[in-house]
Amino acid sequence: MSDIRAAVDTDWPLPAYVRHRDFQWFDAGDLSLQSGAVLRDARLAFKTYGQLNAAGDNCIVFPTYYTGTHAGNERLIGAGRALDPARYFIVVPNLFGNGLSSSPSNAVPAQRGAAFPHLTIHDNVMCQHRLLSRLGVRRIALALGWSMGALQVYQWAVTFPDLVERLLPMCGSARCWPLNHVFLEGVKAALLADPDFSAGEYRQPPERGLRAFGRAYAGWAFSATFFREHLYQVFGFASLESLLDYWERDHLHWDANDLLAMLWTWQHADPSSAEHGGDLARALGAIRARTVVMPCDTDQYFTLAENRIEAALIAAAELRPLISPFGHCAGAPGRLPTETEFVERAVRDLLASG
Amino acid sequence: MSDIRAAVDTDWPLPAYVRHRDFQWFDAGDLSLQSGAVLRDARLAFKTYGQLNAAGDNCIVFPTYYTGTHAGNERLIGAGRALDPARYFIVVPNLFGNGLSSSPSNAVPAQRGAAFPHLTIHDNVMCQHRLLSRLGVRRIALALGWSMGALQVYQWAVTFPDLVERLLPMCGSARCWPLNHVFLEGVKAALLADPDFSAGEYRQPPERGLRAFGRAYAGWAFSATFFREHLYQVFGFASLESLLDYWERDHLHWDANDLLAMLWTWQHADPSSAEHGGDLARALGAIRARTVVMPCDTDQYFTLAENRIEAALIAAAELRPLISPFGHCAGAPGRLPTETEFVERAVRDLLASG
Repeated sequence: MSDIRAAVDTDWPLPAYVRHRDFQWFDAGDLSLQSGAVLRDARLAFKTYGQLNAAGDNCIVFPTYYTGTHAGNERLIGAGRALDPARYFIVVPNLFGNGLSSSPSNAVPAQRGAAFPHLTIHDNVMCQHRLLSRLGVRRIALALGWSMGALQVYQWAVTFPDLVERLLPMCGSARCWPLNHVFLEGVKAALLADPDFSAGEYRQPPERGLRAFGRAYAGWAFSATFFREHLYQVFGFASLESLLDYWERDHLHWDANDLLAMLWTWQHADPSSAEHGGDLARALGAIRARTVVMPCDTDQYFTLAENRIEAALIAAAELRPLISPFGHCAGAPGRLPTETEFVERAVRDLLASG
Repeated sequence: MSDIRAAVDTDWPLPAYVRHRDFQWFDAGDLSLQSGAVLRDARLAFKTYGQLNAAGDNCIVFPTYYTGTHAGNERLIGAGRALDPARYFIVVPNLFGNGLSSSPSNAVPAQRGAAFPHLTIHDNVMCQHRLLSRLGVRRIALALGWSMGALQVYQWAVTFPDLVERLLPMCGSARCWPLNHVFLEGVKAALLADPDFSAGEYRQPPERGLRAFGRAYAGWAFSATFFREHLYQVFGFASLESLLDYWERDHLHWDANDLLAMLWTWQHADPSSAEHGGDLARALGAIRARTVVMPCDTDQYFTLAENRIEAALIAAAELRPLISPFGHCAGAPGRLPTETEFVERAVRDLLASG
């Protein structure tokens, strides 16, 4: 029996927000985690676009973001575009905890819900690496990702410096800096204020808490200019309140334990923790990839200042900020024409470089 | 019977966080509010420092901030200091909703708790104006305030342009801009996620909600640099988590309805709403005070950019930002030596000007 199977060939339940079984599963077996715990019967949901060439060196890895799946990254992939499946073998692995890959909501019964173990960014990347090896990938032409996707690609470049040739973290950072941690504490607190969460043993979703999580998150996701100049109208929201309502309702689709599992992963992101003894400078100093570090100047939690600190620690890094009022969401794959053009230019520049 | 009485002469209950009955009450009677509603038996808690001179023109008005009382402002008042009671008659009125002045927690039974009417910044200032008239004040040499105190002094200068000679809003703004509104929606959502709030009809405090409110607030109150460089150690906190614990516990002292009443006042702050038909430019254009607008460059919700917009609308305004990693808390009265020196220099400069 193969360890890779099409999602249509299995009857594993999918969250409501997953519309199509257009992806595959990699059965990774029991995963030894950075914490020492074991994730039982791990599976990694992924989708590929294009074909791996004979040399195995045209791979682009593009991990997913918080409350994202591979479908969210597809907005940046297409014929004639910078991420062109006609030229590249693009692999989008889904983050553990996102409801497709192993998550509190779908784990084996003994590890379901609140019993799900803590996974790090490193745990994600080690499993993704196994998948890519299994697929025959020998070099990664480019690793790119937005937000939590950026956390993952930094880890890729740190842990596999000889494999990752180019790196493009967008609206992210290498580690979770303290303000970012505190912001997450705040939205987590909003969720946990709902006693229906019941320490993760809920039968019905903690609706108040999920809504509060979404509403508390919204203020962080954009910039003051975005709100002042009514830029939510760009996304089709007539009013600020309708934007906030949408953020509330959008989080009702998510499993609370899944949200908190990914949040833990995010808060504990540190690419130096596994192989560099907690020394961030040493970890980032190990990166050999040609790198474009792309924060957004108005991102409120993955800050420009902290991206500058990190970029200075990477040998071949260029700091190329998105100048945009869309804050953290400026880099959301393929949402905004101007920002997307800026991102795609960086992808082309990187891929054109030797 | 006088409408002004010493707090020690009455047995009105005080919140636990009020240590001393060292202030006075102004019995304002039934207050007609901007909304059309009436606040019954309104009382304004205030404290004065120094003596009014014969001309009645040495008054400084210094309103309180969110989760503050007159005691919090005292750190900036003292002999030989810029705010010197030997020279000035300093009046510190307590914001409605703060548990001393009329609030959900202390209103007449029919207006207690969730039944407390919505008060605007304008309602606060109109009542403060009555108090100052009653005290014999003829000119306001300086109106200054931090945060929600700034919202109040802008209203003072807009509504009483002939009375307010100098203006110093610190880490505030004239109106509540939309990002600021959304930030407040987030912390409010964290509180309301606790069903023990019971739409304001709680018998026991909604502890989870109050804690979540404090934790969600903390991330907004400082800057990324503050957290990254462990500047909470300046306040005596050994770790980030001990800072967050303190913020949680600190909010347990507050009445939930009081917090939400002041939050409503904050969210609806607009100095143009009463006399200028919602036209902010016209309202700020009416200010005749010599003004120093003092945002902090790293304030996450009373933003520098929005202070710049407002300063440009005021005839005699100088934008003089605090450059500090302490974010919104940079301007908290008398907490930080460097920032306090900067504030006091502005006070002296203003008071020395004609």
